[in-house]
Amino acid sequence: MTQPDERPKKLAERLAPVLAQLQRQSVVETVTHRQQQNRSDLIENLVHRQQSAALVRELNKLNKADIGHLLNMLPADKRHTVWQELPNPVAAGVLLELNDSVAEDLIELTDETRLLAILESLDSDELTEIDDLIPNHVLRQAINALEANERHWVTQTIAYPEGTVGDNMSRDSLTVDEGCSIHEAIERVRSAPELPPQTDKLFVTNRHHQLVGIVPLIDLMRHPDHTLIRDCMDKDVVSFSPDDDAEDAGQAFERYDLISAPVVDEHRRLVGRLRVETIMDYLREVAENQALAKEGLKADTDLFGPILEGARERWPWLVINLFTAFLATRFISVFEGTIQQLVALATLMPIVASVGGNTGNQTAALVIRGLAMEQIQTGNLGYIYRKELTISLVNGILWGTLLGLAAWLLYNSMLLGMVMMAAVTLNLLLAALIGISVPILLDKLHKDPAMGSSVVLTFATDSMGFFLFLGLATLILV
Amino acid sequence: MTQPDERPKKLAERLAPVLAQLQRQSVVETVTHRQQQNRSDLIENLVHRQQSAALVRELNKLNKADIGHLLNMLPADKRHTVWQELPNPVAAGVLLELNDSVAEDLIELTDETRLLAILESLDSDELTEIDDLIPNHVLRQAINALEANERHWVTQTIAYPEGTVGDNMSRDSLTVDEGCSIHEAIERVRSAPELPPQTDKLFVTNRHHQLVGIVPLIDLMRHPDHTLIRDCMDKDVVSFSPDDDAEDAGQAFERYDLISAPVVDEHRRLVGRLRVETIMDYLREVAENQALAKEGLKADTDLFGPILEGARERWPWLVINLFTAFLATRFISVFEGTIQQLVALATLMPIVASVGGNTGNQTAALVIRGLAMEQIQTGNLGYIYRKELTISLVNGILWGTLLGLAAWLLYNSMLLGMVMMAAVTLNLLLAALIGISVPILLDKLHKDPAMGSSVVLTFATDSMGFFLFLGLATLILV
Repeated sequence: MTQPDERPKKLAERLAPVLAQLQRQSVVETVTHRQQQNRSDLIENLVHRQQSAALVRELNKLNKADIGHLLNMLPADKRHTVWQELPNPVAAGVLLELNDSVAEDLIELTDETRLLAILESLDSDELTEIDDLIPNHVLRQAINALEANERHWVTQTIAYPEGTVGDNMSRDSLTVDEGCSIHEAIERVRSAPELPPQTDKLFVTNRHHQLVGIVPLIDLMRHPDHTLIRDCMDKDVVSFSPDDDAEDAGQAFERYDLISAPVVDEHRRLVGRLRVETIMDYLREVAENQALAKEGLKADTDLFGPILEGARERWPWLVINLFTAFLATRFISVFEGTIQQLVALATLMPIVASVGGNTGNQTAALVIRGLAMEQIQTGNLGYIYRKELTISLVNGILWGTLLGLAAWLLYNSMLLGMVMMAAVTLNLLLAALIGISVPILLDKLHKDPAMGSSVVLTFATDSMGFFLFLGLATLILV
Repeated sequence: MTQPDERPKKLAERLAPVLAQLQRQSVVETVTHRQQQNRSDLIENLVHRQQSAALVRELNKLNKADIGHLLNMLPADKRHTVWQELPNPVAAGVLLELNDSVAEDLIELTDETRLLAILESLDSDELTEIDDLIPNHVLRQAINALEANERHWVTQTIAYPEGTVGDNMSRDSLTVDEGCSIHEAIERVRSAPELPPQTDKLFVTNRHHQLVGIVPLIDLMRHPDHTLIRDCMDKDVVSFSPDDDAEDAGQAFERYDLISAPVVDEHRRLVGRLRVETIMDYLREVAENQALAKEGLKADTDLFGPILEGARERWPWLVINLFTAFLATRFISVFEGTIQQLVALATLMPIVASVGGNTGNQTAALVIRGLAMEQIQTGNLGYIYRKELTISLVNGILWGTLLGLAAWLLYNSMLLGMVMMAAVTLNLLLAALIGISVPILLDKLHKDPAMGSSVVLTFATDSMGFFLFLGLATLILV
């Protein structure tokens, strides 16, 4: 934090380059991290100093995406101040750019009248993008305010479950009839009042409104004017069904380098369009949430949200962890007599547990990535088990021996060293088994394969580490 | 594995629907997971039965992206068989679609003559995509075989370090002079022998070959023929420098919904083009590797690679983990006397360590995501520390008390319960501190913020968990 007496000078120092940068009407503007940081510092300062007029002036200079980015990194209270200053149509655009957790927070504190006014600035596509975040009764009112055909589409689309293509598709697309000529198709493009974003191709339909092909925009310029669309269209189309998994669709987008693709119903009638932008957002979200899921955190956990909520968000898995840790140590309590006789065991047992946890988490990370990339299938599962178990055996014997030697030297007992070696090897084998099985099982149950895997793994390798080591010690040493 | 006697029938059963699917020349083809799985089962079966002719026939039916996907999920030996069967030009296209680890494996076993023949089928853009994977002397030969201007570009491009825009840019782009008319620009598109992939706009240059604007392809159709490009171009261009960070560029692509963007040098001269496809691949790779990095695994770890290599890949962090686990337990050994007197401590101490590890990993996951989304900056770091520490304090007191009560009841000692509570609270505070500091520090050092964070955190929360709990117990109980 800046000291109060220093602030005016600091602010002036900061303002100069930022304003210069904001005013510079450069043709080629490179978006850099530093620039973003300066802007955010400036705006945070204005919020802090309650300079509302200057704040509005600065905000006006930014586009919606940039305001969204700023809001994402402001602490909750400052975020709220900026949000209140945004005119409704700007707020609508900004809302689409926010992280879900931030958007939810802001929607919660917006009164119903303003929220409805904001939602009115959104078209049907944009509305379906954020429908999950809006309270049900407000959403219903917003949908009722739409035109009849838009209303129908929105109602249908929001019914698709999260993670499906239907949930991620948009409404607008440029279509032409297969009987048109290139010239007529160009006229179609020319006369469209507004072009849907990321339009790279026209969808071609027959007289039954069924999708029969596509024409890349660029081909319109490269074929003679009189050519019929039917004769030059691309019939080999990658299309999706609204029920398809959005992640699978994302992989198809990557594999076939798509920018947009048609979504069709069971009769091959066009029901929507999938855009690379939406799919990219979705994939990024999934990837980012996976790291959180692994630790048992929800995707919409807000780094800048209220503290009590933050504490409460951690409870479910904290409780599971408490419970499993407690359970794991019950294995120790069984052997308290053994420990009393040989207190070195208490010192060495966490090593066995820790090495197992490390190996298990490595295996799980590989398996989770393999599942995400669709590399793992029923056919090669046996191979993966055999491979990971062999790796664990090799590493267990190698490093278990090393640890055994250390234990032998440290406590001058060869038998203790042998117990150590055996326990490490067995725990590594178990870790590999669990590290593969937990993600695979979760995936089969159609859950996020990373979900809580860290807690489950730690439980298994801890409790088995203690049990194996102390159990073997009791059998052999006491 | 299928039993030998069952195999012929099983294969026939499997073949029927797959072949039907492969032969179906459907206009609308939905890419589904199941379809991929069937194909891969079929091909794996053919490899297994050494039916080379049938294998080649099946492979011919697939496009390069699909063959790449298949190779990614075949075990190493079967992968090699399929690779040997691919004609060189097909192999070249497939190579671009493979995961790095798989591509490296296949390149390694390809003899130099074939590898050079394969590389000859690649254009300069494609060559720079995989230059990291090719042995240096082969790469040099492949570059020398290029035409002079391509050779120059490739040599320049491969010099940019990994993770920069320069490393990810491609060479081809459609440019027009600002003095051209729309009609001339359309002629330019029409006459281009080959269009660069994902061309959604023309780059506009002045007579000094400097970038001055862009024209979306679609605008070519929507402006009158005689309009000058200069008068209708978009001057507000998002462009990048080859030295920019590719991840930052990725965020700009998402924020501004870009499909392609120009890359310019310090004199604003066009040096390349960045495509959404390349950026999407890059972002996905980064996200996927982060989960591995957290466990100390390298990005190119191959789930299907050779076993010994797999074992060796785990060594560096396994050794670090062994070492830190050993170090952590040294804290226990200091208190062996205390444990001897009160063996319950040995049972309870892993709980303190485990709860700390869980909380620390949760905090780290949130911070790593915050860094990836550029939500965390110097200005709000203080806020994050205060927030996470307060959450830890709240949760520590709450759940520490509960654990303390359990310990009190279990071992009938109120003092032991109080030690438990204090140790849990302190360890949670420490876990939050480390969970924030480790990723932030790694980020400041320009390392992957997730790298090995799991091992470092476990070490800190384990050793401090043991030290705090046993230390407090020694002070208060003994």
